[in-house]
Amino acid sequence: MARTDLDALALNALTLEQKASLLSGRDFWTTKPLEEAGIPSITLCDGPHGVRREAGGSDHLGLNESIPATCFPPAVAVGSSWDPEVAARIGAAIGREGRALGVAVVLGPGVNIKRSPLCGRNFEYYSEDPLLSGVLGAAHVAALQAEGPGASVKHFAANNQETERMRVSADVDERTLREIYFPAFERVVTQARPATVMCSYNRVNGVHASQNRWLLTDVLRREWGFTGVVVSDWGAVQDRVAALAAGLDLEMPGTGGASDRRVVDAVRAGDLDEAVVNASVRRVVALTERHHGVSGAFDADAHHALARELAAECAVLLKNENGTLPLSASARIAVIGEFAARPRFQGGGSSHINATRVDAALDAIRALAPDVAYAQGFSLDGSGDARELREAAAEAASSADVAVVFAGLGEREESEGFDRETIDLPAVQVELIRAVAAAARRTVVVLSNGGVVSMEGWHDDVDAVLEGWLLGQAGGSAVADLLFGVVNPSGRLAESIPVRLQDTPSYLNFPGEAGHVRYGEGVMVGYRYYETVELPVRYPFGHGLSYTTFAVDGLTVARTGDDTATVTVRVTNTGERAGKHVVQVYVATTAGPVRRPARELRAFTKVSLAPGESRTITLSLDRRAFAYYDVPLGRWVVAPGDYTIQIGENASSVVAETTISLDGDSVVPVVSLDSTLGEWLSHPLAGPALVRVLTGGKNERPEEDDENGLRMASSMPMGRFLTFAGIDIPHTTLRELVKLGGSDGAAA
Amino acid sequence: MARTDLDALALNALTLEQKASLLSGRDFWTTKPLEEAGIPSITLCDGPHGVRREAGGSDHLGLNESIPATCFPPAVAVGSSWDPEVAARIGAAIGREGRALGVAVVLGPGVNIKRSPLCGRNFEYYSEDPLLSGVLGAAHVAALQAEGPGASVKHFAANNQETERMRVSADVDERTLREIYFPAFERVVTQARPATVMCSYNRVNGVHASQNRWLLTDVLRREWGFTGVVVSDWGAVQDRVAALAAGLDLEMPGTGGASDRRVVDAVRAGDLDEAVVNASVRRVVALTERHHGVSGAFDADAHHALARELAAECAVLLKNENGTLPLSASARIAVIGEFAARPRFQGGGSSHINATRVDAALDAIRALAPDVAYAQGFSLDGSGDARELREAAAEAASSADVAVVFAGLGEREESEGFDRETIDLPAVQVELIRAVAAAARRTVVVLSNGGVVSMEGWHDDVDAVLEGWLLGQAGGSAVADLLFGVVNPSGRLAESIPVRLQDTPSYLNFPGEAGHVRYGEGVMVGYRYYETVELPVRYPFGHGLSYTTFAVDGLTVARTGDDTATVTVRVTNTGERAGKHVVQVYVATTAGPVRRPARELRAFTKVSLAPGESRTITLSLDRRAFAYYDVPLGRWVVAPGDYTIQIGENASSVVAETTISLDGDSVVPVVSLDSTLGEWLSHPLAGPALVRVLTGGKNERPEEDDENGLRMASSMPMGRFLTFAGIDIPHTTLRELVKLGGSDGAAA
Repeated sequence: MARTDLDALALNALTLEQKASLLSGRDFWTTKPLEEAGIPSITLCDGPHGVRREAGGSDHLGLNESIPATCFPPAVAVGSSWDPEVAARIGAAIGREGRALGVAVVLGPGVNIKRSPLCGRNFEYYSEDPLLSGVLGAAHVAALQAEGPGASVKHFAANNQETERMRVSADVDERTLREIYFPAFERVVTQARPATVMCSYNRVNGVHASQNRWLLTDVLRREWGFTGVVVSDWGAVQDRVAALAAGLDLEMPGTGGASDRRVVDAVRAGDLDEAVVNASVRRVVALTERHHGVSGAFDADAHHALARELAAECAVLLKNENGTLPLSASARIAVIGEFAARPRFQGGGSSHINATRVDAALDAIRALAPDVAYAQGFSLDGSGDARELREAAAEAASSADVAVVFAGLGEREESEGFDRETIDLPAVQVELIRAVAAAARRTVVVLSNGGVVSMEGWHDDVDAVLEGWLLGQAGGSAVADLLFGVVNPSGRLAESIPVRLQDTPSYLNFPGEAGHVRYGEGVMVGYRYYETVELPVRYPFGHGLSYTTFAVDGLTVARTGDDTATVTVRVTNTGERAGKHVVQVYVATTAGPVRRPARELRAFTKVSLAPGESRTITLSLDRRAFAYYDVPLGRWVVAPGDYTIQIGENASSVVAETTISLDGDSVVPVVSLDSTLGEWLSHPLAGPALVRVLTGGKNERPEEDDENGLRMASSMPMGRFLTFAGIDIPHTTLRELVKLGGSDGAAA
Repeated sequence: MARTDLDALALNALTLEQKASLLSGRDFWTTKPLEEAGIPSITLCDGPHGVRREAGGSDHLGLNESIPATCFPPAVAVGSSWDPEVAARIGAAIGREGRALGVAVVLGPGVNIKRSPLCGRNFEYYSEDPLLSGVLGAAHVAALQAEGPGASVKHFAANNQETERMRVSADVDERTLREIYFPAFERVVTQARPATVMCSYNRVNGVHASQNRWLLTDVLRREWGFTGVVVSDWGAVQDRVAALAAGLDLEMPGTGGASDRRVVDAVRAGDLDEAVVNASVRRVVALTERHHGVSGAFDADAHHALARELAAECAVLLKNENGTLPLSASARIAVIGEFAARPRFQGGGSSHINATRVDAALDAIRALAPDVAYAQGFSLDGSGDARELREAAAEAASSADVAVVFAGLGEREESEGFDRETIDLPAVQVELIRAVAAAARRTVVVLSNGGVVSMEGWHDDVDAVLEGWLLGQAGGSAVADLLFGVVNPSGRLAESIPVRLQDTPSYLNFPGEAGHVRYGEGVMVGYRYYETVELPVRYPFGHGLSYTTFAVDGLTVARTGDDTATVTVRVTNTGERAGKHVVQVYVATTAGPVRRPARELRAFTKVSLAPGESRTITLSLDRRAFAYYDVPLGRWVVAPGDYTIQIGENASSVVAETTISLDGDSVVPVVSLDSTLGEWLSHPLAGPALVRVLTGGKNERPEEDDENGLRMASSMPMGRFLTFAGIDIPHTTLRELVKLGGSDGAAA
């Protein structure tokens, strides 16, 4: 039922109680129907990387076993694909499964920024970079919604940790919100028009996201034009009436009618405008109309094959010395580590999928190379003797040409709901890797982990590292495909891998204290930090190897209008195998009055190339690619100045660059008596006039040759400078000066 | 005239206009007299390290040439003495000079914390550590005031940069203010009772210090018991009425009666309570009584000798390889660098002293070793050919046994009023040092600088480095004394010397933008940062060499009461010369709910020892040595737990340690429905009761074996957990539980 229909049906015909009833859930997963008005109940369910449709009656914590569905690669893996096609194909498949399972809204994707590697939910998020997160999230949403169900981009906003997630205040300045934590949401909302946006549990600068009017109404609806439903994260509503007034339409799960009664009471008491209720009702009803009542079936085999294909796009080949990879099927191979047999392929918490099936890497490897040896190496549940397991593994390794160790984090190490306290691999695994590397001719490490792990203590001992993240239910097969070169690795890091946890920019401020977490690093998140302070990392954002090689040349940048440009570059596959290269365009500048990161990713694309093939790629840079958010002005500003367009092999290695000069926004400064003497002197009109007045009148103005004295006086607000220096400018003259400065003359 | 006298004289006999007139200056340096009431005018003048009494009528910017006075070592040097005796002797001498020059209040000392090495005024501040700053500041104030004049501890508060100093808001959380930026003020106020406290120019969390009632009244007067006068920094008053209401008694300089009229008008309009005016008048009158009308003479020769003696206590011998220092008078010595002949010994701005005389190091060296060669090396004013000067210096160096290069920062590089943008030495000097080091058999660098300089590019080329900071007018002689071993160096760094500017904890947030500077590093300032993130520095806080050696043994720590302790340790001079050692006691802990620095300086003392002499030192640790400031509780808390008492050679090198366990404050947690399930479960009374209720009643509570599920639920506020989990606890039971948790039962 479209909005006009509902209006025609006369919203006023519904009682206040009926309207309020539409604004909170019936139970854990469904909304309340209003049959007399033809409004159906719809089902929402978890699903960033698969549909988690609970089977029976939903339990109270919503963690019942769910109907089997395909577990696609979680966002941590999709982020590393750097490919919106991967995100879109997963989104579409999830849309099909959701439709088949009668789901109106599939909750996801999560586009929160990875502020710290410790965040327990990083596996559900794409990247430390807002552009990469936004492009992938938008592709996922658009494709999912094209299949019928609605999406719910989450968790809005500044939800970057699990510790105290329901109470903690993310204390973060507006520029940082605008430049780092909002853009992925903004892109998804404006480009993919998700049916719903899910507010987060936490507070933002002291105000719960669920009742933050600036967030949910001023920014989300007024600035970005969001017209869908804002739904609470499950249990995120603190004060239902305040939340509704702030712009939160639908509270989930239901509260047995308690919230509805509060809404009714507030309207009756005159504390809440009924128009607010009506607006939310219209949105919720529109949602039920768009996405209810679909169902069907999905092709589990095809989706498993898809999950395998896409997983192979996501793993990142971090290191590959001595041509260790790809493996030859005829080599003597020892597979080591329980993860090879019992794969870790998804994270814990609300996103946990009851997979239709699960591929173990060991089986997939044996399908390609039947004679591989296997040693458990360590046990996930702590059973067995660690030393015996390690020694058996080393022995297996010593008689192989190459040992492949499957290491990573178990489900106890990371999950939604809590943050990690370390980025180390479990010590038993580090010891295993070292023992194997000491025994083997060549050693490959395959990692399964939702959050970044340190490679301290073993990285230099091994020949190759394949970062598999969590790759979904077909990840084991995909890893085998990559190890043997059936597929050429093409993933690139969507997050920096630091040398040490202590190097991470939020290290000292994460996860906060006394109810607050200070975003002390501001916009300097991830590679923006490492590159700006020139701190080495283990592997930089954007890094990833291939079994072929690529060359980039012919960079040209053309200005295309007011502060926009196109970037053209030629990419050539200079190796022997087909492969995919990610063209990464960064912009570096020091223009403007704010501290800019050393460089920022502003465009990218993934290119598939046959051996010897060249392609010329053109990417656009819009004005936002050059802009910073000016808090005092309340808008995006392109500062006049030089901008260096850089093609990065990754965030720390620039392979080509060229500098353009932009006119930028002509921000004519307004000076008032609160402006400093320095600001006055540099004002195009008021400055010279002031100098004339000062020169013509008194002599007390600072001697121009007293350089430091002038620098001192320059920082004085004009009004206080005049008082301080005892300079008595006639009132009419002062009024004229202030007028020249662009301020209201009356202010003088 | 004491307060009671004034009261007796009937404050009400003064007109409102008369009273208001007492609350702002007559001119730049004096207050208004009220002869009919017997209230004199008093003179205030600049003077952290010397008396800057202007000669004639004060000019409007207050930067006239002043009457000659002794320029003692500025605070940057005194900080490095680690000796309150040095601070006290300087304070006393300044007090005598102030008295002789008819000064009632000598402005200083500055006890702001060195947050960034870039701050242009760091030379006026002692240290990056609040304890060291506070101990030295208190010694200075007490000794100065014992001579008659009053002191003015400044700049209160969070004034840690010059950029935008009149407008910038220092955005800093309360724990950081309490633990880092306040304690030096608190110590000076509570232990030395300064006549005045000077408010700073900047805003603190958005509110100008001059009109920040929390700062000037709640904290300063109510908590710390300050009874003196709060005076504005010169020109710091924005809104006179708001400032007066906030607790700012005296506005300086005068505003020609404008401010007084505003005060009168505000009282008449009922916007300002006349009692506020009366209270400030009482304080100002008491100040004029205590400190007016003194005068006399001072012994310039004796004070110059004192300045020389004390300067030698302040320089820090950073490096001394191959026994390069002390120099032998019979060695062939080449003195290089214009600073040797034209010393830089003080900083620019309001603290600039018209010194009674100035010792050049070159003259002092020639007094000890007449045949030294001298080469200018570089020119301070940029005149001459840099290459020729360098080559001449290298030639002089090549024919000497040892070359002593005087390098440092000129007055253009640093001053009050602006911040540096680099910590590099001027390139011409770096080239000079490298050229000399390449030519000389041994190279010594003597530095003159108010702010830290990087040693990148030359440190490893030279044999010895003597960090002279700015040593006052007799610094040249003091340096000669140290170089030749007439005095044994005993200074220790009061601030860390980083390897690179990018390593400094405030690097990305200094000096802020859009009117705000975010103290993103929180309490992790200086060595607290480097030690906590384990980042190497060039030289750590507390570092300093001697011509003799010391050993420390026999550490014992005894608990002396509730969360206090005494530390006993034996120090032995194990070398051949008399010397002074600084015993540095740090406390390291991870106790409590807040992130603690790796270690914090909690006690120190400087010990003088003859060769072979041992002394047993006992130092006390009060409860503040173990406490953190708990913002939600609004007080200092000693958390129960382990505390390691460490004797540091410096902040990064612990030579002895022992751990004690403290009972700490028994903070019985109060749990309410806003407390998390985890907090409930760990509550001694409410926890077990809750478990009984949950176990006896329903079964929906999380399974105990679902470890991660329980961890997820643990972070839910109790109220929302119950709603969320659909657990229906009878109201009376819930009320009992909440009561057990310590909250008001009615809240349920």
